[in-house]
Amino acid sequence: MAMRQTFEDSADPSFGRLHTPLIREAMADQALDGFLVPHEDEHQNEYLPAANDRLAWATGFTGSAGAAVILRDKAAVFVDGRYTIQVRDQVDQAVFEIRDLVDGGVPAYLREALRPGWTVGYDPRLHSPDALAALGDAAAKAGAALKPVDANPLDAAWGGARPAQPKSPITSHPLQYAGEDSSSKRARLGAGLAAQQAEAAVLTAPASLAWLFNIRGGDVIRSPLPLGQAILNADGTARLFLDPDKVTPDLPARLGNEVTLEAPAALDSALADLKGRTVLVDPAQSSAWYFETLAVAGAKVIRGPDPTALPRACKNPTEIEGARRAHARDGAALSQFLHWLATEGQTSLPDELEAVTRLEAFREATGALRDLSFDTIAGATANGAICHYHPTRRLNRRTEPGSLLLIDSGGQYLDGTTDVTRTVAMGEPSAEMAERFTLVLKGNLALARVRFPVGTTGPALDALARLPLWSAGLDYDHGTGHGVGSYLGVHEGPHRIAKVQNSVALRPGMIVSNEPGFYKEGAYGIRIENLQFVTEATPIPGGERPMLGFETLTLAPIDRRLIVKAMLTDEERCQLDAYHARVLEVIGPKVPAAVRSWLAEACAPL
Amino acid sequence: MAMRQTFEDSADPSFGRLHTPLIREAMADQALDGFLVPHEDEHQNEYLPAANDRLAWATGFTGSAGAAVILRDKAAVFVDGRYTIQVRDQVDQAVFEIRDLVDGGVPAYLREALRPGWTVGYDPRLHSPDALAALGDAAAKAGAALKPVDANPLDAAWGGARPAQPKSPITSHPLQYAGEDSSSKRARLGAGLAAQQAEAAVLTAPASLAWLFNIRGGDVIRSPLPLGQAILNADGTARLFLDPDKVTPDLPARLGNEVTLEAPAALDSALADLKGRTVLVDPAQSSAWYFETLAVAGAKVIRGPDPTALPRACKNPTEIEGARRAHARDGAALSQFLHWLATEGQTSLPDELEAVTRLEAFREATGALRDLSFDTIAGATANGAICHYHPTRRLNRRTEPGSLLLIDSGGQYLDGTTDVTRTVAMGEPSAEMAERFTLVLKGNLALARVRFPVGTTGPALDALARLPLWSAGLDYDHGTGHGVGSYLGVHEGPHRIAKVQNSVALRPGMIVSNEPGFYKEGAYGIRIENLQFVTEATPIPGGERPMLGFETLTLAPIDRRLIVKAMLTDEERCQLDAYHARVLEVIGPKVPAAVRSWLAEACAPL
Repeated sequence: MAMRQTFEDSADPSFGRLHTPLIREAMADQALDGFLVPHEDEHQNEYLPAANDRLAWATGFTGSAGAAVILRDKAAVFVDGRYTIQVRDQVDQAVFEIRDLVDGGVPAYLREALRPGWTVGYDPRLHSPDALAALGDAAAKAGAALKPVDANPLDAAWGGARPAQPKSPITSHPLQYAGEDSSSKRARLGAGLAAQQAEAAVLTAPASLAWLFNIRGGDVIRSPLPLGQAILNADGTARLFLDPDKVTPDLPARLGNEVTLEAPAALDSALADLKGRTVLVDPAQSSAWYFETLAVAGAKVIRGPDPTALPRACKNPTEIEGARRAHARDGAALSQFLHWLATEGQTSLPDELEAVTRLEAFREATGALRDLSFDTIAGATANGAICHYHPTRRLNRRTEPGSLLLIDSGGQYLDGTTDVTRTVAMGEPSAEMAERFTLVLKGNLALARVRFPVGTTGPALDALARLPLWSAGLDYDHGTGHGVGSYLGVHEGPHRIAKVQNSVALRPGMIVSNEPGFYKEGAYGIRIENLQFVTEATPIPGGERPMLGFETLTLAPIDRRLIVKAMLTDEERCQLDAYHARVLEVIGPKVPAAVRSWLAEACAPL
Repeated sequence: MAMRQTFEDSADPSFGRLHTPLIREAMADQALDGFLVPHEDEHQNEYLPAANDRLAWATGFTGSAGAAVILRDKAAVFVDGRYTIQVRDQVDQAVFEIRDLVDGGVPAYLREALRPGWTVGYDPRLHSPDALAALGDAAAKAGAALKPVDANPLDAAWGGARPAQPKSPITSHPLQYAGEDSSSKRARLGAGLAAQQAEAAVLTAPASLAWLFNIRGGDVIRSPLPLGQAILNADGTARLFLDPDKVTPDLPARLGNEVTLEAPAALDSALADLKGRTVLVDPAQSSAWYFETLAVAGAKVIRGPDPTALPRACKNPTEIEGARRAHARDGAALSQFLHWLATEGQTSLPDELEAVTRLEAFREATGALRDLSFDTIAGATANGAICHYHPTRRLNRRTEPGSLLLIDSGGQYLDGTTDVTRTVAMGEPSAEMAERFTLVLKGNLALARVRFPVGTTGPALDALARLPLWSAGLDYDHGTGHGVGSYLGVHEGPHRIAKVQNSVALRPGMIVSNEPGFYKEGAYGIRIENLQFVTEATPIPGGERPMLGFETLTLAPIDRRLIVKAMLTDEERCQLDAYHARVLEVIGPKVPAAVRSWLAEACAPL
């Protein structure tokens, strides 16, 4: 079977040099002095169909977040802390200035770079209304103005070279995995709309459609997302807009008669039908175009969170059971890979591509793999320090004795989505590597065992995973935990464990990653990532309040050659031993005998 | 010398019964169906002059935060978690429904209680514009409307019984305490305004005036605040509006010729003078009235944080040195009190009033006390569980053997403001008391020793103080740390360590309290509070990033009879021993010999 991942560069520094002149020509045709290029597409997706990866085509940068501004006389690309190394490799700095997406971001650049009287275009289908407001303010401060375009000049420049829009079939997601049928979901969300005095909600996030209608698609690589839109009414009925070419024959019957299946071309008139009605739209999910179109139609728009976001994040018992099965299956595949790496790999010293290929093969051999949940990050030696690195033929490095290999990977299975990172010593690790690995491990263990009251948000727990590193004068420049879907996106809100503010309380059933790390630029990277879910509130003996907690889903050994036992407290050691005992108990019976005996050693008490 | 504190009830449950009919009459005169009564006054003060404590007069509730809504047919009072016990004692529930200020708050009540067509009045000088917007939305959802009043109907109802506005003299705050002269402060803040493209800022928070002009007043009890307003221009000049009756003769000369001193009546025309200019106003500090008045005047208003807030919070070296002196002085007074409590008090078993009186006398005896920084909270036995309790003759309790006494107190000195809580065992404490005290102590120690990177906000650290309690199924329902002024308010922003969101990074020089607690309703309360300030970023050996940290200012022994030594780690024990050694070193020489020998025992290593 062919590999799912490729090692070819999908973009490179020549893109900016080749494509910005074309974009500037198309800008000139519309009398624009500049154009805003967000990473997001029409569906505000994180992972994009190739046809919508405008930022990569314009700049060469392929990260999962970012932006660019192309002005008549200069241009800039904006990335966050995860991508500061990658961007320098992918983007031609003779064409683009590289700037921080968070610190100052695009608004600061607009204030500095725009000249009075300039007009900067934007595609209203690609920007959230709140982001646009901040950009518009910044442009105004420079005496310039933003202007929505009807036809995207970048798309015009891209022309015939642009890939076609995806047409993957959309299938129903069976109740045995979803755990609640669509009509029940629609009824309770509809009641929630009514309670907010809304008559309908416009849903534009593909993950929202997938969850609400129990459907899955394949339009977006690595996530089984169906691109489309829907209008959910307060009575639980809905209009669902999907490309008819993508609808599988049995789908309409499964959707039932409360859901009208319509072609995307019908969306405009459906929005016009909302005239005079009170409609909920999420400014974080739906672009400015929806707000403008509904305003023009005479609808009364209420801004509020996508009503599917919270119920989707709180997995039901069927989904949690599915996640347990998926993680056992995925953990067995990963453990076979780790066994190979710990035995043959220690002498053959594979390169990154071989590691990625082997790991994909073990996952494929489960027979249940629907897709990877993202392109595997395998960072040998210095590549491990590039947080969201994906190896290519050009960047590929061989593992070396005395080095670390960081592997962050995951699979999409019908019963669940996995995401796991292990860092493995090749040969004898240095004392520094082991000390820092142990600090990262201590943070991971702290965030796994914490009990916390109802109402606690992710940012309140973020420091627990960093504290051992902070005490040593170290830190990492990424979040600690992201939500994960159930056979859906591997990055899913609305909860998050990170330094940045997030007001969503952690609730039972939410799956979240626990992934502290440490990165030494030019040398090595360390990350330990498990998925865990929020458990029901239970009382602690002698306590007064029921406390939430976490149960770890991910099952794979943590490299004991990297653990400095003396740095662990008794509590931490017991916790790790108990985790390893569980790994052996669940994974042991699922792997061949040779792997099982290795696993028994890898999981023995410290 | 007379006591500074009184033990008389300033409000009681009869207030609501007596005063709501008068307010409803005045509402009817203006054809209002309801009226909103916030705790805040015209200066958005936390502590209010008696003339402005409208909430207490209307309801009986004297807490430092809250609100009431008085409708034609019913009424509600809103308090947060700190005041759930106190409010039941102070407010007549036959007149007022008691509701949560945070969960749902006033908006949820308006949505439920208002009837279509109703008009609810509000005084625009008392409400922040953002709070009003949320209230207006809520009223609209019920089909009702809010309406600003020119004359406050509550004030009309209060009439001649209302105390006079305060007229305390305003004096200059010498450079030896302030550390930076006003013209330097105005120059750098003015430059900051220019950088934001603002031509002026309107300042309405008394603490902002106090800091910016190096002046102090006495209009508000417990804080040396001057009530007034100012307009700061980008060139560093300013117009300062103060009641001429309050201005001391030397003040104009000290303010210099860059500051125009004007009467409050000139404010309206000064705001009108801002026509066409870009003016910064803080919606969290200045009421809706300023925004409306400036809009009518034709000024261009930029909403943004009060420009004095951050520089005021980051104490300069002179202010930090002053804080050290103030805390040594205050700690010596508190230690004499704790000695009395640990010796004579153990047999005489004083009541709360005696404890408060003694402690005030020790502070008074320093000769440097300008005021208390708040009314002393002395909670014996079950009163200790009322978080912001102040003893009165009616509520007063005697200490008992086997009980706890919680004392939260502080002093205002020219060189600094103190705020400290100690919990003391009377007789032999129960095992449960000691265990829970030790959990609280562990949290306090964790938050005192943490090192954290630049950019870290208070909420990221909040859980550190709670974690030992959480592990035992316990928690406390108040914030962990508030900012403290330099001879200014004892609660000062913009930073805060709490569960609630706060995006202000902790910066060197910020003073913040560290006050975890545990409260057992009907039984006892525990709180340990020290003030600490953020230290300059310094590297940790072997680390990569300069890390901020804290230095503890408060110096007073922690009751070792309440510490379960076996529950402390070696690190925690060493930390506490080092703290106690410092207390003995600094305070020992400042107290009489008998106290010193007791202190040596109280501060001996565990």
